[in-house]
Amino acid sequence: MNHEDLRIGGDRLLARLNELAAVGATADGACCRLALSDDDRAGRDLVCRWMRELGLQVQVDPIGNLFGWRAGSEDAAPVMTGSHIDTVRTGGRYDGCLGVLGGLEVVQVLNDAGIKTPRPLVVGVFTDEEGARFHPDMAGSLAYAGGIPLAELYETRGIDGKVFRDELARIGYLGDAPLPLYRPHAFVELHIEQGPVLDLEGITIGAVENLQGISWQEVSITGQSNHAGTTPMRLRHDAGYCAAAIGHFLRQLAREMGGNQVATQGKVDLHPNLINVIAARARVTVDLRNTDEALLQQAENRFARFLAQLAKDEGVTIEAKSLARFEPVVFDEDVARLIARTAGRLGHSCRPMTSGAGHDAQMMARICPTAMIFVPSVRGISHNPAEHTEPAHLAAGADVLLHTLLELAR
Amino acid sequence: MNHEDLRIGGDRLLARLNELAAVGATADGACCRLALSDDDRAGRDLVCRWMRELGLQVQVDPIGNLFGWRAGSEDAAPVMTGSHIDTVRTGGRYDGCLGVLGGLEVVQVLNDAGIKTPRPLVVGVFTDEEGARFHPDMAGSLAYAGGIPLAELYETRGIDGKVFRDELARIGYLGDAPLPLYRPHAFVELHIEQGPVLDLEGITIGAVENLQGISWQEVSITGQSNHAGTTPMRLRHDAGYCAAAIGHFLRQLAREMGGNQVATQGKVDLHPNLINVIAARARVTVDLRNTDEALLQQAENRFARFLAQLAKDEGVTIEAKSLARFEPVVFDEDVARLIARTAGRLGHSCRPMTSGAGHDAQMMARICPTAMIFVPSVRGISHNPAEHTEPAHLAAGADVLLHTLLELAR
Repeated sequence: MNHEDLRIGGDRLLARLNELAAVGATADGACCRLALSDDDRAGRDLVCRWMRELGLQVQVDPIGNLFGWRAGSEDAAPVMTGSHIDTVRTGGRYDGCLGVLGGLEVVQVLNDAGIKTPRPLVVGVFTDEEGARFHPDMAGSLAYAGGIPLAELYETRGIDGKVFRDELARIGYLGDAPLPLYRPHAFVELHIEQGPVLDLEGITIGAVENLQGISWQEVSITGQSNHAGTTPMRLRHDAGYCAAAIGHFLRQLAREMGGNQVATQGKVDLHPNLINVIAARARVTVDLRNTDEALLQQAENRFARFLAQLAKDEGVTIEAKSLARFEPVVFDEDVARLIARTAGRLGHSCRPMTSGAGHDAQMMARICPTAMIFVPSVRGISHNPAEHTEPAHLAAGADVLLHTLLELAR
Repeated sequence: MNHEDLRIGGDRLLARLNELAAVGATADGACCRLALSDDDRAGRDLVCRWMRELGLQVQVDPIGNLFGWRAGSEDAAPVMTGSHIDTVRTGGRYDGCLGVLGGLEVVQVLNDAGIKTPRPLVVGVFTDEEGARFHPDMAGSLAYAGGIPLAELYETRGIDGKVFRDELARIGYLGDAPLPLYRPHAFVELHIEQGPVLDLEGITIGAVENLQGISWQEVSITGQSNHAGTTPMRLRHDAGYCAAAIGHFLRQLAREMGGNQVATQGKVDLHPNLINVIAARARVTVDLRNTDEALLQQAENRFARFLAQLAKDEGVTIEAKSLARFEPVVFDEDVARLIARTAGRLGHSCRPMTSGAGHDAQMMARICPTAMIFVPSVRGISHNPAEHTEPAHLAAGADVLLHTLLELAR
């Protein structure tokens, strides 16, 4: 059999996705497997069973990251794939799981075809990617890449007050493998897009080149409450107007900067929030993202200057507080190009793209050449029971993963 | 004694204001005399007693409007003053009461000086000005001016489900005087400004020339919820951005139109109102006011065109619903000028001005020459226990009322 003709088993992949989705399934069709919960353990147990059935050698590290090893014909650094199986409280069926089970499907196909790759292959399952129970998110891959001291992570308390290390031990996944267990030759993560671009453009594969930097701010405006009828415009100190001016400016900023710059005012709270009262106070959130750190800083600086001028013009006090700040990540150009080439060779439409969400791959990019494969999310919906990807797209993504890994593992 | 030297008794006026404020006083210092409540009755009983003590002939009409008549030396149409004594739930001490008790103080001064004016004088107390229990507001003066059928008002149910006529009869103020009892030669209402202009400008008297028209709208925007990171700007249908664009446009509109045009977005509610989610829905309120009906219509039309364009540009659905609409009222030029001249003669700083709030005078303007006298409200606060006007300003307003009525009653 020619390697070129190998294809993954779409029904088999879907069957595994469905079986895993049943673990922690909620009444409204969501999956709830919060990190280090009983349901997370049950999901891990299932994945470990599958790994062993596929002949993989399973190891667990001190963060609970889980690895299935498939030997190569040479003693070389392995090619790794993988993702996570923990979910947010209202999780979908594919976020994370596709990357893990897509990896297992690749192993299955290679097993069935009797193919031994020159380099070893590893399928990884990273702990606590969502951060929905224990902060920070992407904790498992972050620790794997050396980005956070073990001791600090161990002491973290979850939203339920429980301690990370205690919960990890309780579910039986406090392992003793070295950290990091491998320094891969390359890492490729298959994931649903969690955004609308591929779905809207009717494209099957995204070759993810980079990941946006994120700047979250909360802006508090203190003006003066007054009667909306009797207060002339020139005497107003209107916190509600300032909130609107910020939303308007953000759109202008994103338009003027163009490129990958996005800007969102997702949350607005006015006080007293009455039809005939000029708002005394407003609190709004600002979400700025760019793939280029210098441009993201430029956006932040322009926004800060705008706020200073607005406060002066309207006679209000404005305070901006940073809620989160992550620098952009640039993936490996060669790996991203290989993904795009592979998709094309397999006959799938493909575009280079940027991830707007965070993924384990961004941590792995710190220690090895990394890129990601995206498949469409219908209407961009995720973290929601309505999260959906067409079976044909799931299979296409796993096929691209298979042939990308084959190429990297030569 | 020269009439020119007459002055009202400031301490006496303040004593009556304080005594009336004790009726319906709440623990936090507010006055609560909702229309046709037991406390409203107690306040009315007190005012009637004062009227009779001052020798006024008291009559009550079928709406419960209360009138104290002081005979003139001629058989001519009377000059009327007055206001209301009902309050909102968190009322202050001066809103309405100043106009009624200022009128009684004028009578007291004339009695003490033994002056009989050529025209009769009447002090009126209008029912349910606030509309805080029974809609509409200014019900008593509206009915007096023939603006609402008696039968319709009688059937109105209050916020507590009680029927207007039943409550009016219950408190003993369902009178049988003709409606309207008088068609006055002129009507002058003394009132606190309930806005910040006089206080901020350090001016004692406002000669109120007109009253703003009001257009209230609720605007509902339906866009599409999406990830704030992964959704490119060009693919957004952002209800939150539309809410901001509306607030920004309203300020621009008021600036461009200038003059008396004011525009306020006092209430904004986004859904789901999260930092990293493009809002799916927004609901905002719009408060447009102008003293000129044609200009107010122009503002409404420009806003409607803006909404249509915004809906098209952003790919969202926008619905605007009218919540309230009142045409502007122009007061009598001669009466307003007389007030300004009188204030000047008495040595008080004075400016012509516009009322942004509704008052009984706007209903009386339908049937006779009418204008209003405003005194400052500290920081523009009213409908609030913190409502305050300096005693010197209360007295100045009552002095201007006295001499304006003397002139009108010649």
